[in-house]
Formats: sequence, structure tokens, C-alpha cells
Amino acid sequence: NAQLNPTTSDPPTPPTDHRILAQTHDLFITSPFSPGSPLLLPNGAYIFQRLQSFLRAQYPQFGFREVITPTIYKKSLWETSGHWENYAEDMFSVQGRGTTGHTDNAGTGQDEEFGLKPMNCPGHCLLFKDNIMSYRDLPIRYADFSALHRNEISGALTGLTRVRRFHQDDAHIFCRPDQILSEIEQTLKFVGMVYDTFGLGPYKLLLSTRPEEHFIGTVDEWDRAEQQLTAALGNSGREWALNEGDGAFYGPKIDIILKDANGKEHQTATIQLDFQLPQRFDLQYQASPEELKLDMPPREGETLDTANRRPVIVHRAIYGSLERFMALLIEHYAGKYPFWISPRPAIILSLNQDPKVLDHVAHLQAVLAGLRTPDSEPISFDSPQDFTARAKPQPLSTIHLPIDVDTSARSLGKKIAEAQSKKYNHVIVVGPKEVETGRLKLEVVNQPNSAASQRVLESTVGRAMQDSDWV
Amino acid sequence: NAQLNPTTSDPPTPPTDHRILAQTHDLFITSPFSPGSPLLLPNGAYIFQRLQSFLRAQYPQFGFREVITPTIYKKSLWETSGHWENYAEDMFSVQGRGTTGHTDNAGTGQDEEFGLKPMNCPGHCLLFKDNIMSYRDLPIRYADFSALHRNEISGALTGLTRVRRFHQDDAHIFCRPDQILSEIEQTLKFVGMVYDTFGLGPYKLLLSTRPEEHFIGTVDEWDRAEQQLTAALGNSGREWALNEGDGAFYGPKIDIILKDANGKEHQTATIQLDFQLPQRFDLQYQASPEELKLDMPPREGETLDTANRRPVIVHRAIYGSLERFMALLIEHYAGKYPFWISPRPAIILSLNQDPKVLDHVAHLQAVLAGLRTPDSEPISFDSPQDFTARAKPQPLSTIHLPIDVDTSARSLGKKIAEAQSKKYNHVIVVGPKEVETGRLKLEVVNQPNSAASQRVLESTVGRAMQDSDWV
Ligand SMILES: [Zn+2]
Ligand SMILES: [Zn+2]
Repeated sequence: NAQLNPTTSDPPTPPTDHRILAQTHDLFITSPFSPGSPLLLPNGAYIFQRLQSFLRAQYPQFGFREVITPTIYKKSLWETSGHWENYAEDMFSVQGRGTTGHTDNAGTGQDEEFGLKPMNCPGHCLLFKDNIMSYRDLPIRYADFSALHRNEISGALTGLTRVRRFHQDDAHIFCRPDQILSEIEQTLKFVGMVYDTFGLGPYKLLLSTRPEEHFIGTVDEWDRAEQQLTAALGNSGREWALNEGDGAFYGPKIDIILKDANGKEHQTATIQLDFQLPQRFDLQYQASPEELKLDMPPREGETLDTANRRPVIVHRAIYGSLERFMALLIEHYAGKYPFWISPRPAIILSLNQDPKVLDHVAHLQAVLAGLRTPDSEPISFDSPQDFTARAKPQPLSTIHLPIDVDTSARSLGKKIAEAQSKKYNHVIVVGPKEVETGRLKLEVVNQPNSAASQRVLESTVGRAMQDSDWV
Repeated sequence: NAQLNPTTSDPPTPPTDHRILAQTHDLFITSPFSPGSPLLLPNGAYIFQRLQSFLRAQYPQFGFREVITPTIYKKSLWETSGHWENYAEDMFSVQGRGTTGHTDNAGTGQDEEFGLKPMNCPGHCLLFKDNIMSYRDLPIRYADFSALHRNEISGALTGLTRVRRFHQDDAHIFCRPDQILSEIEQTLKFVGMVYDTFGLGPYKLLLSTRPEEHFIGTVDEWDRAEQQLTAALGNSGREWALNEGDGAFYGPKIDIILKDANGKEHQTATIQLDFQLPQRFDLQYQASPEELKLDMPPREGETLDTANRRPVIVHRAIYGSLERFMALLIEHYAGKYPFWISPRPAIILSLNQDPKVLDHVAHLQAVLAGLRTPDSEPISFDSPQDFTARAKPQPLSTIHLPIDVDTSARSLGKKIAEAQSKKYNHVIVVGPKEVETGRLKLEVVNQPNSAASQRVLESTVGRAMQDSDWV
């Protein structure tokens, strides 16, 4: 620790662990009352929601629609999906505490035991099954940001990376076998767009194919699916490699392996094909005339209507776990967040305590936060809420920036030093001159200048990001 | 049932139950695998998220910041908050299934038993307690849309109104005793703005005060708090009434009682003061010089530092349960949703199957959905995804409307009839003439014309809501 050794002339090594870096921006805390379930403070929740909003803004162009699904399902659903048995140690069980106090035995009381969901797939299968779809309706793409729980052993829990509760940018694509190619192509395009936006990469794509033994479905089905995956990978223009025979027994998959600034590899996004869940949930769609012409080999235990076919499910996540992706970004940006996801985009410092200066600070804060137009009437620093007396609903499209102020009586030098240590992107000083001229002294402290973040910025906050336009 | 009695000349009574009305728009399903946890289909999730986005857009002007908090907490937290004992029958308990399969006894295995959260307050207390705040930092306002679980008996479960899993637009304000008036005033203003926006009301406000016996805190504390609540109610300009002695033992409250179109009353929003939780969690803030001058009566079991004071907590929800609020809106609008929250704002019908007509349909759909500008190059109906080849990140501020198309070979009359029965707000017909002139035949089918929804509309979708501007 460089700080404990004042004799060395080396500068202290900046911390690279997300848990340390996160403290600068007050992103999250952990609590012994819920090990592995980080509590996101306002600044952490802000980053989380910007990540979520960014993806949501992309979903329509890729044809995803969001659904909202339960947190707990009865044991019997998890038995159908196979999780109750195969995922036993990772699951939490849930029971009503009953009408006569706590019931100690599962299965007693008015309710069967529940499982706290570790994955969204079974719930999405219930939605798909609700209506029998035609081949024309496919693909159906359900996205879901639900909280998920997996019972990691408590010794392994840490920060945002080893957790018990997390959120995925989860989605399931229910498609026809002949739609695999275009779905995988689109998904790889989506992955590329997202990782470019955050300036992450390079990454490599890894295709895992049919295991030698123990797989479900026919060799033919696997071959056709793998051909489509291979074609999609070829068309992606990205580096990819083959992990032959390394697929799960229920389908081939593509992993995205991201290399961080320190050369460490992270498995983030996944694209997993699944021939099994459609069988377990007996999912069917009305086949097309072309599909009906093809012979279908009879299968053991098949309950398929002759006019129907089984869809393929593609499980896919682009961020993967949002918490882990946040940890990755925290380390990637090392405190210098791009303006559009920065929890501290700007702070306004008052040069003195003159009431006119303070009023102007309050006015500027409201303008930069997206709450007022620059030409709106002055407000008073002492009762800033006065302007909500005339509050009207804010449009849903407004981008609200969390703009802070420091109007304490301390010296400007101290205030600037603190703002810099808190890594605000911009520091704005307001004194009598700024009040008179209506112009600002704006210092850019921490604005990473990557092309990708600039591109998103321009479309996100429009004029506001142009420093010279801020007044 | 009017439909079973064809001899009567009365028109069939339109359904008024949200469960029936919701079917028209495919809003949600329920499943025996998770009784009381409705599964929101894409259209239902869309309405849910519009409600959530609307409130999020208002939070900055009212000073709320969102946090993200755990779903499960150890039993000991619920014992501290008092829920484990007082809320026993309504809570679900959670246990890791352990490393040797299912553990039947609570407290064994590596983990203490958990409770699935029925409320957010204890988690927010942990966040508040993380740092010792100064009187200058208050109020702190945490908002949270977390899923909550309460174990209602299964016989009572129905639709979106009697559920086990729901989401509140929950928030907790941690404030000084002297800040109660302005916080309650702001909250009542917020409530009014939201209910006006949805055209809901009239509603009345009901103040419940200190019970005769069994209350915590001093009579003086209660009196000062009730004086502030009374003043805020008086300043609100709304009808209000007194429910003397009907407050909970831990604080006075204001209920909002909404009267629906059928004269039925609903308790939706609540504003509940709480003197108890700050004590149970030993919450403190550094008192102001003025506060320190006031004598503080010693209290049994107080662990307060002499330089500190306890904050008051205000629990407040404006929608209340989002699911129940949705049910209320479903019945309130009876299928005629305002454009800005309508899951079916518009459908485009093709007059014929001419490729040029179909391409124009695809182009228009993308434009109205916010994915392309009106002057962008033509796209092909057969491969609409081609334009995502040139996809760039969509700005977070874009409003994406779910625009449907019907390009089936059926007659226009049949397509219009179906669109009307599905209650699209707008039906747009595209034929060769529209392709040539670039103009549209646009029929407004279901556009409720309330001033409130218009006001929000204008600020929400800007140009897009002006029908004549749609091309
Ligand atoms: Zn899945
Ligand atoms: Zn509460």
C-alpha cells in the first residue's frame, strides 16, 4: 500500500477492483442481512437504469418485447423444466408461513412449496404456450429484466461479481428451425453494437458443438443448427473459434469472451440454443406447408400434433448479469464514466454566498437537470421547490441529469479539489460575473473522449452535451 | 347475460371487470404454477412500463432518487423491523436448498432463514443508516419499484387486484420533524398531478390521527406532526375529512380515497408517518444548532447520541400497487386507452398485396415506431431487418410506439372490423394512392379526448401525436 509507505517516490497505484472504485461514486453497499444481494445506492441505481434504458431503446429495432413474470413458481414447474433436480443446490425454496405460524414441513399448509426463480425460461414457456401460434407468428422474442436468485455459497460472495441476486438482460427467442441463421446474425449484430457503444473489446466468439454422446434430438437437427450458427459467425466479421463437442446436451451455443484492459478474460454474453425445453413444455406451433412436406422422424415420448412442429428456443443475454457488467464497466472506466451514464455528470460551485449567486446556481441546476428551460423565470435558492408549485408533468422523453451543487462557505479551491476527487465530469463555477453575463466557467475534468461514447452522447442529450451551449 | 337472451332489445352491457376488459388487449395471463403472480404479456408490460416511466420522469422535480434493494433478507432483519412477528401470516419464508439436497428445518444448513420482502422500508433503513447524515442533508427520499410478496390465501386471488406479487411506486422520505409540512404539501401536489393526468377522480383525503391509547412517542410530537398534516391538507385545496383516533400506533396518516366511474371507492395512495421504524433501526442524524437548543424528553430505551436526533419516516405511494392501479385504469378507460399508454396506438392495413404497397407499409411502420425518419431510404417488406444492418444505437429519449400491421390477403372491410374490435386508437390504410402521394387515410377510432391526456400527449410524443403530421 503506497500510502503507508511515504518514503517511496512511486505514485500510488490506482485501484482497479470494482469494489474500491465503486466507493468513489457511492454506488452500492452490502449488508450481512442479505449476503450476495448488493443494495444499490442512488448513483449505482442510476448507472443500472441507464444500462437498462439503453437496451430497452434498442429492443424495438431487434423485435424484442418485454414481459413481466413471477418471482416464485411452484415446485412442479421446476420439475417440468428439470431445474428442481438438476439445479437443486443453486435454488432457494419458498414457503408461505401459513395461518398457524410457521410450517416446518414442505407440502403442508395450503400451498405446495415454491422455488425462487434462478432463470426466466420456464415462465416464458408458459407465456408462449398460452396461445397456439402459427409458423407466421414466429419468431416470438420475449425480454425480461427480472431479479434472479442463485444460492452461491456465502464464502464466495463479493461485490457485484459473486452474488446471489442479480438481473440479466435476459431474452428467449422462440423460432422455427429455419430461422436460426437470421436470429443468430441479428443477435451477433446486437452484441457488437452494444460492446462498441461502451468501448469494450476486443472479444472473441466461441462456438460449442454437439457432444459425442448424450445429446437430445437427432444428429440431423444438430447439423442443420450448427451449419446456421457457423454461417452466422462467418458473416459477423468477428474472430471466432470452435470448441468441438463442448456444447450442452440440449443444444449448441456461442459464448462471447471479452478481454479487459488488464488482459483478463470475461465470459459475458451467451447465445444458447435449446432443443430440450420446447419438449419438456410440449411447445408447438402450426407448421408451414413446406415444413409439413418434410418427413419428421418419430421420437420417443413425442406428444406433437401431426400438423405442428416444435420451436427452437434461443436463450440470449447481451450484458449477461447487469451487476457483473456494471462491475466490468466500473473497472473499464476507472471512475471516468462517459457523460451519458455518469452518476456525476456535473457539479455547480458557488464562488460566494451572495443571494444572487445562489439563485443563479439553483436556476442553472434546474436547467441542466432538464427541469426548466434556460429562459424560464428566476427561482429562489431558499425555496427551490416553489417552482414545482407550477409543476406540470414532465414528458417521458426528458433526459434528467443528476446535477449537484456545492454552495458551502468553503474556499473555491477546496470545493474544486473535492469535486475533482469525486470525479465529476464537469465542474461549473458561478460567481457575480456569471450571474451578470449569463455565461459560465466550465471545466471539463473527466470527459472520456471515445468516439463510441460521443456518438451515443450526441443522440442522447443533444444540445446539453455541447459545453458551450449549456447556457 | 344479454348475449344469452337474443329476444331483448337492450344492447349488451359492456364488461366492466378488468379481467374481461384486459383480454381484448392481451394484457396478462395467470398460471396455476404461480397463483396471485400475474404474468404480464407484452401489451400489459408496455402499460406497466409507461406508468413506471411516467413516474420516473416526475421524480427529479420532487427530489426522489431511485434505489435497488434485495428481495430476500435474513429473518433477523424482519425481527428488527417487527414484521417477522406482526406480519407473520403474510410473509413467505425462504431457505437455501443446501448442499445435501433439501433441508427441511429452518436454521440448519449454512444459512439462517430468509423472508421474502413484503415491504421495502427495512431495506431503505439500511441504506439510510450506512452514513450518518447531517440535518442539512435531509430530507433523503428513496424510491423503489421492487417486486413485493404477501401471502394472501389462494381462494381470494384474482386478476390484478388480489395478488401475492405486486410492485409499488414505493418511497420513503427520511426528514426532520420540522420538514413534515413541506414534504406532505409536495406529496399531495404530486398525487394531484398524477391523478389529473390520468383523468381519475374526484378523490377525497382522509386524515387519521393519534389513537386514544397505545401509541409511541410523546403527545407533543404527535400534536406537532398532526398540525403540519392539517396545514398541508388545508393548503392542498382538496376536500378532506378527519378520522379522529384512527391512526396506527406508530404515526398519523393520510389516505387517498378515489371514486371510480361506478361510484365505487378505492383506497389507492397513502402517506403514512412513522415514528417507530427510526427507533427500531436506531436511525440518527446530526441535529441542527436550533434543534439542540430544544429540550429533548428522555425516553425509555433511547440509544440516541446527545448531538443527534431521530428522523421521521414518511412511507408514501402514489399509484399504490401498480397492478391494482392498472386494473383501475383498465376499467376507467374501458379499452379506450389514451394514446400515450395505449398498447395498440395504431395499426397499418394494406389495401392489397402489391409489393410496393407492402414496402410502404414496412416503411411507415418503422417511421411511426420511431425507428426511422420519414425521409429515410425505402425498405423491403420481405426483409425489414435489412435496415438494422445499418443499425445505430437508438437514443434513450426516443419514444417507441408499438405499431402493428395487417397485410393479410383478407378484404379491407374484414381487416378494419378486426382492428376496431381490438380497439386500436388509429387505423391507417395504405393502398397504391397512398404510396404515390405519400399521404395517408387515417381513421381515429378510439382517441379519448380528455384535456389531461392531451396535455401529456403533447409533451410525450410531440409531433407524432399530430395525426396530420404522421407522414
Ligand atoms: Zn433461459
Ligand atoms: Zn414503507
